[in-house]
Amino acid sequence: MKWISDSNILIVGLGLMGGSYARALKRLGYRVSALARRPETVEYAIGQGIIDAGSTFPDPELVCGADAVIFALYPGVFKNWVRDNQYLLKPGAMLTDVTGVKRCIVYDIQEMLRPDVEFIAAHPMAGREVSGVENSDDRIFQGANYIVTPTEKNTPEAVEWCKSLGRILGFRRISVLSPEEHDQMIGFLSQLTHCIAVALMTCTDNRHLADYTGDSFRDLTRIARINDAMWSELFLLNQDELLRQMDGFIGELGALRELLAAGDAEGLREKMRLSTARRAYFDK
Amino acid sequence: MKWISDSNILIVGLGLMGGSYARALKRLGYRVSALARRPETVEYAIGQGIIDAGSTFPDPELVCGADAVIFALYPGVFKNWVRDNQYLLKPGAMLTDVTGVKRCIVYDIQEMLRPDVEFIAAHPMAGREVSGVENSDDRIFQGANYIVTPTEKNTPEAVEWCKSLGRILGFRRISVLSPEEHDQMIGFLSQLTHCIAVALMTCTDNRHLADYTGDSFRDLTRIARINDAMWSELFLLNQDELLRQMDGFIGELGALRELLAAGDAEGLREKMRLSTARRAYFDK
Repeated sequence: MKWISDSNILIVGLGLMGGSYARALKRLGYRVSALARRPETVEYAIGQGIIDAGSTFPDPELVCGADAVIFALYPGVFKNWVRDNQYLLKPGAMLTDVTGVKRCIVYDIQEMLRPDVEFIAAHPMAGREVSGVENSDDRIFQGANYIVTPTEKNTPEAVEWCKSLGRILGFRRISVLSPEEHDQMIGFLSQLTHCIAVALMTCTDNRHLADYTGDSFRDLTRIARINDAMWSELFLLNQDELLRQMDGFIGELGALRELLAAGDAEGLREKMRLSTARRAYFDK
Repeated sequence: MKWISDSNILIVGLGLMGGSYARALKRLGYRVSALARRPETVEYAIGQGIIDAGSTFPDPELVCGADAVIFALYPGVFKNWVRDNQYLLKPGAMLTDVTGVKRCIVYDIQEMLRPDVEFIAAHPMAGREVSGVENSDDRIFQGANYIVTPTEKNTPEAVEWCKSLGRILGFRRISVLSPEEHDQMIGFLSQLTHCIAVALMTCTDNRHLADYTGDSFRDLTRIARINDAMWSELFLLNQDELLRQMDGFIGELGALRELLAAGDAEGLREKMRLSTARRAYFDK
């Protein structure tokens, strides 16, 4: 299937990401339906014009009517849904997702999937520190990165289709990585940084310091406001990589501590000069 | 002395902070002069209307003519300047500073100072990731915090004078802390966070990840672009506190690592809920 505007899109899971996808696709002229757990969510989304139709159960009409299905579920729930409901999918349907970890998802889903539908995984690297369809907003895609993570089982057509989806949603940069490369990258750039922000907030009762806080500390801890159900699942599903990244960081911070303890000004300065030089690569 | 607009203000050290003080005070109608190391700095600042007069040496006319002197120097240089040049100060002059560490500065300066002048220390918690008078900008004070750190040797009048200085410069919140409280607070909120940002950039050659970087990582590492000469000096002058803060943080991150290694989802979620609750206190 191509991205022609008479396609029917089904979004499974209508939280912050599912809702943001729905808003963008509906604005682009697609017919968008959604499955959500709570009836209030479906009612709200229809009432606000975020979706055209919705259901709290896998309504065969919606599932079988969809040319493309976008899964915006927690990883465990996602696998169960596919196992239990894939028989309802339209032959030839294209499936994609928004899951923040890939190795533990992509191979299992592709392994169990019917041969007449295709799953091509993607990770839209966008988000907010709030959740729920009420907070959904497709402007979060603007300027953000979108990663497609194909395997050997994927067709070139599916990869192109998935990249096109990222483009029409408004992402700035579309990349292709293997599930392994993705999980390594996300372990460092996203999961480790969330661990750091959490530990900064929990290592001491620092509430009395709020009065003296500058932008640096606020910036570093913005992501300390965290959806504990989702992130604990994502951490555990990328456990080996995240442990490796945490060990690398803790070791380096320990090395900086030793330079400080030894009063080694030149050693500290060398680290700071390396840090300054590397950070330049990350300026937008 | 009060903040009456015919006062003469001398700024010693014309970098980012000294230049920003000069701009603000000149705009408020004060006569502002400055001492800088390099003749180009003095020329530039006079040419741009940032100061009225300047010199590369402790010109007796400028020093003795100043009702107030603001020191915007690196800590070590600051002490030497006072030791060598205090004989030039006008009797009754009020002295203050912008130094980012306090215990190691305040007591030594007050100990060596002439009895007919008074030094009241302050820390304007504002800055940028760039340095030099060319980058000075007094808008950095808006919304920022300003801490006065008096000792038993200070008069109530000097404390009030120093608080007024923070107010007229445009700082949002003016606080009073002891030098010990200040150094503890700054060890956690500022120095530890800079160590974390530096270690994140130096722990691995991550330049190839720039393409996938989202705002979280950029926010966390913005301060990894760091003036190595200044920050290594500040770190070493607050060595005991910073080591204590680093140990607390490394220990807590290690605890989070153990929860992850043990697959303890509920333990991870508990940390995340505490982190989320505490972070709410830091919202502006």
